[in-house]
Amino acid sequence: MTVPSATGLPPRVRIHEVGARDGLQNEKTAVPTEVKAEFIHRLAAAGLTTVEATSFVHPKWVPQLADAEQLFPLLSDVPAELPVLVPNERGLDRALALGATRIAVFGSATETFAARNLNRTVAESLAMFEPVVARAKAAGAHVRGYLSMCFGDPWEGAVPVPQVVRTAKALLDLGCDELSLGDTIGVATPGHVQALLGELNAAGVATGRIGVHFHDTYGQALSNTLAALQHGVTTVDASAGGLGGCPYAKSATGNLATEDLVWMLDGLGIETGVDLAALTATSVWMAERLGRPSPSRTVRALSHKE
Amino acid sequence: MTVPSATGLPPRVRIHEVGARDGLQNEKTAVPTEVKAEFIHRLAAAGLTTVEATSFVHPKWVPQLADAEQLFPLLSDVPAELPVLVPNERGLDRALALGATRIAVFGSATETFAARNLNRTVAESLAMFEPVVARAKAAGAHVRGYLSMCFGDPWEGAVPVPQVVRTAKALLDLGCDELSLGDTIGVATPGHVQALLGELNAAGVATGRIGVHFHDTYGQALSNTLAALQHGVTTVDASAGGLGGCPYAKSATGNLATEDLVWMLDGLGIETGVDLAALTATSVWMAERLGRPSPSRTVRALSHKE
Repeated sequence: MTVPSATGLPPRVRIHEVGARDGLQNEKTAVPTEVKAEFIHRLAAAGLTTVEATSFVHPKWVPQLADAEQLFPLLSDVPAELPVLVPNERGLDRALALGATRIAVFGSATETFAARNLNRTVAESLAMFEPVVARAKAAGAHVRGYLSMCFGDPWEGAVPVPQVVRTAKALLDLGCDELSLGDTIGVATPGHVQALLGELNAAGVATGRIGVHFHDTYGQALSNTLAALQHGVTTVDASAGGLGGCPYAKSATGNLATEDLVWMLDGLGIETGVDLAALTATSVWMAERLGRPSPSRTVRALSHKE
Repeated sequence: MTVPSATGLPPRVRIHEVGARDGLQNEKTAVPTEVKAEFIHRLAAAGLTTVEATSFVHPKWVPQLADAEQLFPLLSDVPAELPVLVPNERGLDRALALGATRIAVFGSATETFAARNLNRTVAESLAMFEPVVARAKAAGAHVRGYLSMCFGDPWEGAVPVPQVVRTAKALLDLGCDELSLGDTIGVATPGHVQALLGELNAAGVATGRIGVHFHDTYGQALSNTLAALQHGVTTVDASAGGLGGCPYAKSATGNLATEDLVWMLDGLGIETGVDLAALTATSVWMAERLGRPSPSRTVRALSHKE
């Protein structure tokens, strides 16, 4: 359907698909390794060019992704970049041994979440990431730095922009190629998003190095994404079918659904390379394996019509 | 929580609450008249200043609102404007006899929907509205013109902007004080929204006379609202708790949830006068009466925490 296109927005957006990692690590249902592999193959076949595959975290902490060593070799023919999360040097060793070329570390903008999630202060976690990033870069890998709790924190409330900028800069100073700003609990609104992006620019961080990662807990993820696009952001994290959830808002949905994002980008005439029908079919297929419907409104609307 | 506010947006938005009419007319569960009256009282107590109350349509077509004559007198002490929908002169007579001071007519931007919903051509429906609007204005009433299918139509696909502008102008020329642009099937995206608003302005329609009415079928309602606010729109239709649905996408949600809207507006520092906690409590109460959870993400997140 041809509709008027928007002006002042980027012509192309790269979607960083997180369903297989951020999505599945929050799902209660155990997913067999072969199903994960097929999921990732199907996501790439639907046109996604960056598909975060798994996490080389200790199985004790994220049992859902304990099969990273078995899964990753099944993905060698996937025509997409396949970043993997690594929490520390041990995780990096495991990822590099399997040939990973894109890794990600996961930091926190707040002390409370750093303490609860990483069992460290923010400064200690940055110190832990330092050799991880340095060695990854030395091995030729691309490094993404996730920064969680960039807008609100369940214990600390609104997170001051200067505090987020400081930690974001520190992650980039370690050598991260790109940053993913996470609204982990989904409380952000568009003005806050644009304010943070503006302050990051003022601190010398180019918009091209910034990705955004919104959660839909309060239904704000897509509006916040629009605000980020209007600021010039061209990397957007999303999760196929809206997979995953936030452990701090159990009844709420989790990540921005890739399909809802693609619907908007298609309508805006912004190229993604994604085939929405193929992606929706993949999310319906995955939802069947998880035994529950997709929370994505676009998936529900399109699959109902089929 | 204090967050950076947005610039270039209106300082205040008037929410036109449609849950009691557009929401309940699409609900399968029969709602007793006294429950509707309490719902409307609670919506006004939560700070909503415009609460569309009911519809004086023939009971055969909308049995859910067949109690309009019984309901309206129960609302005499509600501290809010209480517009009512009237389909024709007979409906207007009934509304005026009960003292209604704000009425709304419901037109279509497409011939197919006009034929199916109004059993008339677009021109015939405008001819039907002409005496309704004239007599309402003569009686001192404020008149809103709903225009449905302004972006996409399930049978006709994308609706050309000039066609929408033409019908919108015709409704205003009849004497309507304001226009509500409806994305009845929820397919719009922000560029399309801004393009239509721009063309309406170019045709001489002031933004101050335009309200927007988005459905969340594809998760786009709030992004589209943001785009409209950025264009200067200050009247936004929404439905408490996301009540209602679109008959053409049964599994999908219906109207933009008022709570999701208020969350965004609060975050943007845009005044609405609405108390989000009181509104959420009202939607939870109504959801219990309807026997199903609210589809509003904000309602789910906030009520889970309570």
